[in-house]
Amino acid sequence: MDFLSKRARRMTPYTAGEQPKDMRYIKLNTNENPYPPSPRIREAIAQETDRLPLYPDPDATALCAAIAAVEGLDAGCVFCGNGSDEVLSFAFCAFFDDEQPVLFPDVTYSFYPVFAGFYNIPVQTVPLNERFGIDAADYFRPAGGVIFPNPNAPTGVYLDIASIRKLLDYHKDRVVVVDEAYIAFGGRSAAPLIQDYPNLLVVRTFSKSHALAGMRIGYALGQPHLIAALLRVKNAFNSYPVDRLAAAAAAAAVADVPYYTETAGKIVATRGRFVSGLRALGFTVLPSLANFVFAAHPGVPASDLFARLRAAGILVRYFDLPRISNYLRITVGTDEDMDRLLDVLAALLQQKA
Amino acid sequence: MDFLSKRARRMTPYTAGEQPKDMRYIKLNTNENPYPPSPRIREAIAQETDRLPLYPDPDATALCAAIAAVEGLDAGCVFCGNGSDEVLSFAFCAFFDDEQPVLFPDVTYSFYPVFAGFYNIPVQTVPLNERFGIDAADYFRPAGGVIFPNPNAPTGVYLDIASIRKLLDYHKDRVVVVDEAYIAFGGRSAAPLIQDYPNLLVVRTFSKSHALAGMRIGYALGQPHLIAALLRVKNAFNSYPVDRLAAAAAAAAVADVPYYTETAGKIVATRGRFVSGLRALGFTVLPSLANFVFAAHPGVPASDLFARLRAAGILVRYFDLPRISNYLRITVGTDEDMDRLLDVLAALLQQKA
Repeated sequence: MDFLSKRARRMTPYTAGEQPKDMRYIKLNTNENPYPPSPRIREAIAQETDRLPLYPDPDATALCAAIAAVEGLDAGCVFCGNGSDEVLSFAFCAFFDDEQPVLFPDVTYSFYPVFAGFYNIPVQTVPLNERFGIDAADYFRPAGGVIFPNPNAPTGVYLDIASIRKLLDYHKDRVVVVDEAYIAFGGRSAAPLIQDYPNLLVVRTFSKSHALAGMRIGYALGQPHLIAALLRVKNAFNSYPVDRLAAAAAAAAVADVPYYTETAGKIVATRGRFVSGLRALGFTVLPSLANFVFAAHPGVPASDLFARLRAAGILVRYFDLPRISNYLRITVGTDEDMDRLLDVLAALLQQKA
Repeated sequence: MDFLSKRARRMTPYTAGEQPKDMRYIKLNTNENPYPPSPRIREAIAQETDRLPLYPDPDATALCAAIAAVEGLDAGCVFCGNGSDEVLSFAFCAFFDDEQPVLFPDVTYSFYPVFAGFYNIPVQTVPLNERFGIDAADYFRPAGGVIFPNPNAPTGVYLDIASIRKLLDYHKDRVVVVDEAYIAFGGRSAAPLIQDYPNLLVVRTFSKSHALAGMRIGYALGQPHLIAALLRVKNAFNSYPVDRLAAAAAAAAVADVPYYTETAGKIVATRGRFVSGLRALGFTVLPSLANFVFAAHPGVPASDLFARLRAAGILVRYFDLPRISNYLRITVGTDEDMDRLLDVLAALLQQKA
C-alpha cells in the first residue's frame, strides 16, 4: 500500500536536467549562466541574514517594486514566486479551466503538460512549423488559454511581437502566458504590451539572465487583476514562497542593469562564435535568441553524441522526443567551455569519419 | 473580466499574521523565535553564495541526510520543501482523496481547510473537547485521512503519544499527518513511531524552533513510500523548492543541537514565568507546550485587548472564530518582551476596573 491519492497517481512528474554532485563536468545541460551574479548580492544577503528569525513579507513587496522600477511598471503589476516554475504552476491554476484545452507548441518546455496534469487541465499541442517556429494562425481556435516560451525552449527560436499581438487579439477572453525565461539574450520582450492587453501575462526568472538559478526567484508581469489572481492562488498554497535572502538578492541583482547587460552581451557574442563553429563541423543549428543552441548533425545520432560528450566530461541535454530526437540542446557557457566542446566534437566526428 | 479559473474562484486564501514593515512593535503575533539562529549558518550561507549560478539539488539530498542523522533515520525517510506550508500542501495532494473527508480539529491551524480547498478535498472538523484537547476516540470514523498539529495551534495543547498510536491504529489504511511545528518546546515527538507505522507522516519546520522563519524550510519524516509520494507531487509542481542558501543554512542549523536545545530551554522557562504572570492578572491560560500561549480574560473581550495592545506597540494574534473569539494567541518572546507585555496588560486591566 503506497497511500497515494488518485490525484497524485494521475500526475506525470517532470524530470529536471541532471545536477551532478561531483562537479567534474563542463555543465552545459541546464542553461545556467557561466558568469557570477552581480557582486552587489553578497552584501544584500549578508545584511538580510540578521533578519532570518522573522517571516518574510508574504507578497515580496520590495522585490516587486524593484522589478517594477526597472520595467517601468507599477509595483501592482508584478508577482514574485519560488522560481518561474512555481509562478507558471500558479498561472495554470489561476487562469486555465477544465472545460477547454490550453494550447502550447508540440515542441516546448516539457513542464507545461506536467503543470496541466497537476490541476487536471486538458491540453492541446500545436505543431511548430517546419522551421521549428510558432505560426500565430495555428493558434486561432477555441481554447482555455495559451502558453509558450519566447524564445521557445528547447529550440531557441524567437517569436516576433507582431505575432504575439495576433495571439492576444484572437484570445482576448483568455490569458496568454509568454514565458520569457530566455528573453535577455537578444529577443524583444512582450512586457510593453501589458498596458494594451489585460490578458497578457509575462513570466520571467532570475535563474538564467541573472545567474541565480540556485536562489529560486521567478516573477510575472501583468495588469493588476492578473497579479491579484496569482496572489489569491499563492495564498491558498503557501504564504511566503520567496524567502528573505532570495528577495534581498534578487532586488540587488535586478537593479544592477549595467552588470547584467554586459554578461548577457558576452553570452550573445559567445553564442555567435559557437554557432559558427558548430556549422563549420556540419551541424544544423536553429537560429537561437536564447542562452543555448539546438543543433543536429546529419552524420551522427544525437543520442550517440550525448553519450560520448558525457564520457568526455561535457554534459549537454538530450530529449528522446518526437521531432527532436536527433537534436542536442547545448547551453552557451564561456568562450573557453565552448572551444573545448567544439574541439571534443571535432575529434568525435573525425573518429566517426 | 478577471480571467479567474473556476478552480481559483472556489479557493479561500489563508491570511498570514501581520508582518509590519516598520518594525516598531514588540512582535508576538506569528510565533517567531526571539533568539538568533545558530551562528554557524552565516558561514554556511557565505560559502554557498559562490554556487548560486547553479541550480540546487532538486531533492535537497544533503539537507535530508543532515536531518536524518539528527533524527536517527535513513535519508530516504526525509522530504524537504519551501516551508512546512508547502510540505503540508504536498501532503494533502499526495495522500487525501476526493471521496472521503480529511479529519482535523474544529480549532486548529486555519491553513488546513485552505489546503483542502486548493485540491477540492472534502473536510470534516472534529470538535476539541471542553479542555480544548483532542480525544482520539472522536476520530474513530471513516475518513480519507487525519491531520492535526501537536501541540495544536492556536491552543498550544499537546496530545500524548499513546493517543497518536490509537489514531494510527484506527486509520491504518489512511495517512495520519502529525504537524510538529511546535514540538521543540516540551512535547515528545511522534517520529519514533515511524518505524512501526507506514501511515505516519510527521511534518516539521525550521521557522520556529530553529529561528529561520525568513528562510522557508520545512520537512516531512515518514517511511520511504510516503517520501516518494511527496517527491512525486513536488516534481509535478516545482523541481527545486529549496534553494541553495536555505539548504545550506538549514543543514548547518540542524546539526547545532546544543545551541537549539539551549534556546528552546530559554523559551520554555520564559513561558512558565509568563503563564504565571497572566494567571496572576486573572487570565485563563490553556496548558501550552508550544512557543505561544492561548489566554482569555473573564473581564475584558480579547478583541478589545488585541486592539489596545496594538495601540501600545505590542502585536499578538486574535482569531474572530467560533469557540476562541475571546482568546489571544501570544508568542513567547524574551523575558524582557513578556515582562513589558504583562506590565501593559496590568495597566489596561486597571483602567477597566
